[in-house]
Amino acid sequence: MMALGGPKPFLPRILLRLVKVAVLVGSASDLEFAEKVRTRLAEFGVTCEVHVASAHRNPEKVDRLTRDPSTEVFIAMAGLSAALPGAVAARTTRPVIGVPLHRGIGLDSLLSVVQMPPGVPVAAVGLDAAENAALLATEILALKYPALQEKLERYRAKWREEPPGGPA
Amino acid sequence: MMALGGPKPFLPRILLRLVKVAVLVGSASDLEFAEKVRTRLAEFGVTCEVHVASAHRNPEKVDRLTRDPSTEVFIAMAGLSAALPGAVAARTTRPVIGVPLHRGIGLDSLLSVVQMPPGVPVAAVGLDAAENAALLATEILALKYPALQEKLERYRAKWREEPPGGPA
Amino acid sequence: MMALGGPKPFLPRILLRLVKVAVLVGSASDLEFAEKVRTRLAEFGVTCEVHVASAHRNPEKVDRLTRDPSTEVFIAMAGLSAALPGAVAARTTRPVIGVPLHRGIGLDSLLSVVQMPPGVPVAAVGLDAAENAALLATEILALKYPALQEKLERYRAKWREEPPGGPA
Amino acid sequence: MMALGGPKPFLPRILLRLVKVAVLVGSASDLEFAEKVRTRLAEFGVTCEVHVASAHRNPEKVDRLTRDPSTEVFIAMAGLSAALPGAVAARTTRPVIGVPLHRGIGLDSLLSVVQMPPGVPVAAVGLDAAENAALLATEILALKYPALQEKLERYRAKWREEPPGGPA
Amino acid sequence: MMALGGPKPFLPRILLRLVKVAVLVGSASDLEFAEKVRTRLAEFGVTCEVHVASAHRNPEKVDRLTRDPSTEVFIAMAGLSAALPGAVAARTTRPVIGVPLHRGIGLDSLLSVVQMPPGVPVAAVGLDAAENAALLATEILALKYPALQEKLERYRAKWREEPPGGPA
Amino acid sequence: MMALGGPKPFLPRILLRLVKVAVLVGSASDLEFAEKVRTRLAEFGVTCEVHVASAHRNPEKVDRLTRDPSTEVFIAMAGLSAALPGAVAARTTRPVIGVPLHRGIGLDSLLSVVQMPPGVPVAAVGLDAAENAALLATEILALKYPALQEKLERYRAKWREEPPGGPA
Amino acid sequence: MMALGGPKPFLPRILLRLVKVAVLVGSASDLEFAEKVRTRLAEFGVTCEVHVASAHRNPEKVDRLTRDPSTEVFIAMAGLSAALPGAVAARTTRPVIGVPLHRGIGLDSLLSVVQMPPGVPVAAVGLDAAENAALLATEILALKYPALQEKLERYRAKWREEPPGGPA
Amino acid sequence: MMALGGPKPFLPRILLRLVKVAVLVGSASDLEFAEKVRTRLAEFGVTCEVHVASAHRNPEKVDRLTRDPSTEVFIAMAGLSAALPGAVAARTTRPVIGVPLHRGIGLDSLLSVVQMPPGVPVAAVGLDAAENAALLATEILALKYPALQEKLERYRAKWREEPPGGPA
Repeated sequence: MMALGGPKPFLPRILLRLVKVAVLVGSASDLEFAEKVRTRLAEFGVTCEVHVASAHRNPEKVDRLTRDPSTEVFIAMAGLSAALPGAVAARTTRPVIGVPLHRGIGLDSLLSVVQMPPGVPVAAVGLDAAENAALLATEILALKYPALQEKLERYRAKWREEPPGGPA
Repeated sequence: MMALGGPKPFLPRILLRLVKVAVLVGSASDLEFAEKVRTRLAEFGVTCEVHVASAHRNPEKVDRLTRDPSTEVFIAMAGLSAALPGAVAARTTRPVIGVPLHRGIGLDSLLSVVQMPPGVPVAAVGLDAAENAALLATEILALKYPALQEKLERYRAKWREEPPGGPA
Repeated sequence: MMALGGPKPFLPRILLRLVKVAVLVGSASDLEFAEKVRTRLAEFGVTCEVHVASAHRNPEKVDRLTRDPSTEVFIAMAGLSAALPGAVAARTTRPVIGVPLHRGIGLDSLLSVVQMPPGVPVAAVGLDAAENAALLATEILALKYPALQEKLERYRAKWREEPPGGPA
Repeated sequence: MMALGGPKPFLPRILLRLVKVAVLVGSASDLEFAEKVRTRLAEFGVTCEVHVASAHRNPEKVDRLTRDPSTEVFIAMAGLSAALPGAVAARTTRPVIGVPLHRGIGLDSLLSVVQMPPGVPVAAVGLDAAENAALLATEILALKYPALQEKLERYRAKWREEPPGGPA
Repeated sequence: MMALGGPKPFLPRILLRLVKVAVLVGSASDLEFAEKVRTRLAEFGVTCEVHVASAHRNPEKVDRLTRDPSTEVFIAMAGLSAALPGAVAARTTRPVIGVPLHRGIGLDSLLSVVQMPPGVPVAAVGLDAAENAALLATEILALKYPALQEKLERYRAKWREEPPGGPA
Repeated sequence: MMALGGPKPFLPRILLRLVKVAVLVGSASDLEFAEKVRTRLAEFGVTCEVHVASAHRNPEKVDRLTRDPSTEVFIAMAGLSAALPGAVAARTTRPVIGVPLHRGIGLDSLLSVVQMPPGVPVAAVGLDAAENAALLATEILALKYPALQEKLERYRAKWREEPPGGPA
Repeated sequence: MMALGGPKPFLPRILLRLVKVAVLVGSASDLEFAEKVRTRLAEFGVTCEVHVASAHRNPEKVDRLTRDPSTEVFIAMAGLSAALPGAVAARTTRPVIGVPLHRGIGLDSLLSVVQMPPGVPVAAVGLDAAENAALLATEILALKYPALQEKLERYRAKWREEPPGGPA
Repeated sequence: MMALGGPKPFLPRILLRLVKVAVLVGSASDLEFAEKVRTRLAEFGVTCEVHVASAHRNPEKVDRLTRDPSTEVFIAMAGLSAALPGAVAARTTRPVIGVPLHRGIGLDSLLSVVQMPPGVPVAAVGLDAAENAALLATEILALKYPALQEKLERYRAKWREEPPGGPA
């Protein structure tokens, strides 16, 4: 749920409650990256649900999560032969952001996430790039929710001014 | 511009004219990939502008294009050390889809597009994946324009039924 | 179905009809590799069904195929981010052989097939290695069907004697 | 040897004693991975013999091990230029599972194990993937021994329910 | 600024003050590499300004820095999808040395820096090669300032004689 | 030799005759790339000598060429294990531009050229990037010869305006 | 067999007949590379026997060949997961030169040949490098047969003088 | 120098003193690998001289070392863009063993050492493979010195019997 405040009367709070990003990680050991996403999204007032759901282990859970009409953007994170982002993308026509996690040799999950066959697009970000996944999700939502666009602009303006502290 | 037809009275035509995807390619030799995007987007009724604009050669053109308020999603395609997607992403908080083109050794553009530093998200698709770039752009726009969501669902349903013809 | 002939009275023909290898390819453009498998298996008298079924496009078809109790070994072939072998492996505890096809940059499908997470084993063979996939499937079936073991031994003996003609 | 219990009268204990997986590691320093295989196989009641036997150092030991008629599945683990899985596969027509170990740069053993020439199939699993090697061996044996199939189904069902703890 | 001493009357001190190398790093976390450059350049008496300026975060700062007429050589250092060297090169026709920093998987920044498209040359040195970047900058400046050429020759002569201590 | 024309009286023709770029290729089969360099340099009025001289085959020729005091910038091109750029760099403190040629697997020459040890800097450009090598050489010379700087600025200005025709 | 001529009375012809290089290729399709070796060795007067013998297919043939006391140097060529050089090296303490052939993705055979475990050295040359394999074999033999050393010196001297024609 | 003992009267001690392996490392920081070579060679009674001599830093030292007529085999070890083995090979027609050291990303030195152009053979062993370099050198020397051949056979026999302790 997004808490966009009162000054946007044409964006009723009840509607905003439906705005949601679902973060799926294939393993509990990957939850730290999901938490980074949640923290960043919270700064934008975007509600984020985190689920441990593997394409191989819990396909029906992935099914159920992808059918939730209140989820507007998915973020799927996985290492090794990272099938989760593609599995989510195959079940929904909502945007799916894929985050390859650096297990094994790095190139494995990166190529698994980015080299999707035609028809099942995944928006890949870099290895372990939880920060960028959250920003990309917010950018996508901001097309529909103008208040988010303003927040992004403020974030970007502040980001430009502050001393860069290296890779987050 | 999207020609979504008459049966959606709550989506006035004048508004739809503002819906736009901008495709930027770094070189005229890459236009064939931009045309694939245009063709696919046209099937969804999404207007697509194609520009040859290099991050290095025409930064001011990239600047101008990224300031166009009517552009809601950007698609940037480039080979080798593919800086264009990141250059676009640095200039806008609208979603930017990056398409690495297979020049050189393939891994060069793929890694250049996907391994973006934190703060500047790019939604990378696979090497030469024009089809998926168009689908992903449509998925993103569909969050805001429900008629597109219906079209995507119909496309997906048809896609599931038709005999897969291999990588497009 | 295997036509193992009459001299094996303890292996009733009706049972052998149930012996089956299912070959799944993600795209019709990959059927040539499935045909190589079929040809090789036919030489061993092993019945092989070939299906075009994508993990992303036809998950319910993959579901249905993996529930066929008469299939004892699966061979799944795919290129790019090759999720099909893993998708089959997640749906069955029968052995699944994965064949990475050389699309894109080769390493993508190879790593996607071989670097499976724990719990979902895939038996990966080499890039485009239809021949070895068929042999491996036969070796697996031969544990249960001794007649196949004899055929494999004859094949191996003949193979050792004949002049090697290079990669098949 | 498998201890499948009494309720399977058509699977006499004396026969089961012959069921065996042989695990070969090229070096004593790789024994930790063989132990992971043994532990997992023991949970399924499958007997597992572990041998340190190098394709280069002890070819005659590899010869002898591969001629043991009671071994139904081989698992060969090696790092660097990992010739052991192929050396075993060349000596038997029983299924051979190859486990590339992450020494050197990772890609070396992975490619050495998976890119086998036609005629000598190896079922490659991922880097250091002892767990999946054991599961794959059990799946292969389960075709012949139905009690194992039931155990695998129970394992899979339990696996689906338990919280995933990350790569084992 | 270079302190080339008195014996070069045709190289007035006021002119030398204008001799400058600008080092740009994309993030404060990369400053240690910039300091290595500064230390080495100082040994040659070459003034070096260090700036944290990201192609994505502070393009206008990069613009401003590249327009400084007193800067004769640029050194740009960045990791991941390292766009900074190319961004500097696109803004100036002064020589630009690119230093890929080993973040992520190494190959990403290396390929991003070296595989520049035609028209925008970057002089790439090795991963984290601050030492060589400083030497290359000095070699370039030495074409114009003969005193530097002498210093380089002395440095090279001494370097040849001293016991090599391994990668600096 | 540069033919910079008459309007630069402070750049006497006799001095310009000494301005020179030496292009070394390791094999006659690489001369096409050297010719691309020569053509581009000629457009800037920069004299370019092309030599076939291998670090392994003709070290004394490389020695002799690197001792030519009239050569101000070296360009060395080689494929495979490309030692030539480093061999030139070890013999001179003049700037050395290295051009890895795409023989073998591409990564071999690229890594051989760019990953130089400390003390022997090479300015690497991309695979087969003759165009960029010529531009970089001109940029380096332009620090000393202002007329070249003007030419580079005109070239850059024209380059920005003309339709990009893809990788040269 | 070497035909070193009469002027070397201390090198009796009968002894020279025993000097031999054995070239093993894993497949008849690789014979073209073996022929390149034979041609080059013939120029030095070194006898070369070529055998098609696969480590997997004909281990006993490899055994027999490696026990031939008249063979002083082995050259083994193979593609994909190239086990042949290591298989030869494990059977002899004579020097074994390994030539990775460019099948599959190149890196597979190269890493398989060069990354040998300790105890079984293989002298790897480059991908498809038949020429260098022959030269290396001759250099090794020349330690024992001084006449070969003279021939190598003459070859080297001539090679230095002749115009390099690119990769042979 | 080799201490081959008395029972070989036809191998006079004075001659054996000339038997020598020269190990060249590019940097003092690589000496640990040279010491491993020396230790192993000493076990065979082969004299080994270790020199720090860089192809770039001390070409004249490399020249001098390669002209020593008493050196029969060279071992050159280097990391990054490892030019030293090729530099030695270009100066001598004696066998040169190249040992790529794992600095940087590993693939850099490995490819630099193994992908030598035709005419300058280097016998590459694996990354950091000091042990195999020493064994290969001994195998080469053993062609000429039969006593070494016997030692190698004894070593090999013992090696086969002892429990493998993993990569040395």
